[in-house]
Amino acid sequence: MERLVVLGVGLIGGSLARAARAAGICREIVGWGRNPKTLERALALDVVDRAETSLVAAIRDADIVVAAVPPGAMETLFRKLAGRLGSETILTDVGSTKGSVVAAARAAFGTTPPYFVPGHPIAGTERSGVEASDVNLFQKRMVILTPLPETESKAVKQVRALWEACGAEVVEMDADHHDTVLAATSHLPHLLAFALVDALARMDDSWEIFRYAAGGFRDFTRIASSDPVMWRDIFLANHAQILNMLNRFREELDEMATAITAGNGEYLYQIFSRAQTARDYFLEQHNLRSKSGND
Amino acid sequence: MERLVVLGVGLIGGSLARAARAAGICREIVGWGRNPKTLERALALDVVDRAETSLVAAIRDADIVVAAVPPGAMETLFRKLAGRLGSETILTDVGSTKGSVVAAARAAFGTTPPYFVPGHPIAGTERSGVEASDVNLFQKRMVILTPLPETESKAVKQVRALWEACGAEVVEMDADHHDTVLAATSHLPHLLAFALVDALARMDDSWEIFRYAAGGFRDFTRIASSDPVMWRDIFLANHAQILNMLNRFREELDEMATAITAGNGEYLYQIFSRAQTARDYFLEQHNLRSKSGND
Repeated sequence: MERLVVLGVGLIGGSLARAARAAGICREIVGWGRNPKTLERALALDVVDRAETSLVAAIRDADIVVAAVPPGAMETLFRKLAGRLGSETILTDVGSTKGSVVAAARAAFGTTPPYFVPGHPIAGTERSGVEASDVNLFQKRMVILTPLPETESKAVKQVRALWEACGAEVVEMDADHHDTVLAATSHLPHLLAFALVDALARMDDSWEIFRYAAGGFRDFTRIASSDPVMWRDIFLANHAQILNMLNRFREELDEMATAITAGNGEYLYQIFSRAQTARDYFLEQHNLRSKSGND
Repeated sequence: MERLVVLGVGLIGGSLARAARAAGICREIVGWGRNPKTLERALALDVVDRAETSLVAAIRDADIVVAAVPPGAMETLFRKLAGRLGSETILTDVGSTKGSVVAAARAAFGTTPPYFVPGHPIAGTERSGVEASDVNLFQKRMVILTPLPETESKAVKQVRALWEACGAEVVEMDADHHDTVLAATSHLPHLLAFALVDALARMDDSWEIFRYAAGGFRDFTRIASSDPVMWRDIFLANHAQILNMLNRFREELDEMATAITAGNGEYLYQIFSRAQTARDYFLEQHNLRSKSGND
């Protein structure tokens, strides 16, 4: 590949640029962004070879263009790209929701372009911005691609090769299934962490309460330090699946509240044991995949 | 101090025994438990100097007796101790709920003994058992004591000195306030983590869903690996405060569901930003207290 263009040089875009360069899979890596300061940092940190604030200049002669902006900014970006991409230039994205990105592409391009491959690397930290970018962020992580029936298979193959070169394991599924799975394992946990910290912060003696929180609380709420803009966009974009999961969760909470009220220790013990077993299974899978991985 | 007696040599009791020995503050450390295998392990791991399955033999000539059994086993243990403790033997406990332990003491002793000092070290891990005990578990951690008006101040002073020798920072408050604070920062988060993992485990494609969970999920659910028996007891013992906090939390979730349904991004952004700020404040406090602490 000659030229990889990253639109939005934040945590994910910046990490992809670093990893692609380290893998030596392209001659030039171009970064685009609206904020000149971010681009200066990206150049200073040697994340990209060239930085452009002009989108047209950035995407010229691109082989692969990666849209790495928050979900809510995708459609506007796609509209600017419409009619300007080379006929075989591959477009992919890294958005945490996939149904909304496919819809944004359809709205902006009037159709889903055959060289558009929706994607989502399941990697990240609670930090954000190009300063947090990490060449190893995708090592042993999963990347989900959600190609459509009309997507060119050679485009999928190239996007897959890009992520594999960055150390990731690539799987394919449809966008709807992706959004269900991520609502369960990522979006709902973020909602709960944000809601808990906010609920405590709203209490009268909140600062004193935080004083007595320990390591378990710190880990439980780590994801509540994530970027508020990105997460606002995710909740708006994947609202149907998130509300569906939230309703399941509220039913579970109602059942637990009933058991606590009734003093039903046997029921609570069963739930806690089942949760412990399920988490052990998850950990086993997670550790098998990423013995030395960076989360 | 001549003799420290630990009743229940699990994670907390075992760690206290190790830390007290390392601090060199007593001549002999005696461990009691109902399971001979656990006591053998405690002796083999050099956690205690002497192990007894007879409670009477264990508490003979004790200066401080520490009840380190699950909250639900406290009252039974106290009933066995009633009438058998020396007149100035100090009794303390490490239970995660304090109102229930005070009530158990009243029920068992007929009054709250002046040498009984309810206590709770805010330390632990999701692991349990004597194998998980750690000499540094209490270093730079907080210990909350909840003495009653009738508690002898010299008893409080000695229990404070024991924990300080183990590296902890000791604070005093009333039992009710302790139970409110812990319901917020520990009990509710555990409930949410158990409920989330169980809700996912109950879904049809649960094993596939766990496959795509990443580091954020692992940290969020770490506390769902905690001991089911201890946590069942905590939810039964502190039910009123936990239900109160759970109701606050459910209101917060309802507000978020309403905002997601209405597409109210501004509201979501405000909550997420406030949560991020509050967590940053918590982290600052936590890090100030325990730069090198073990959680």
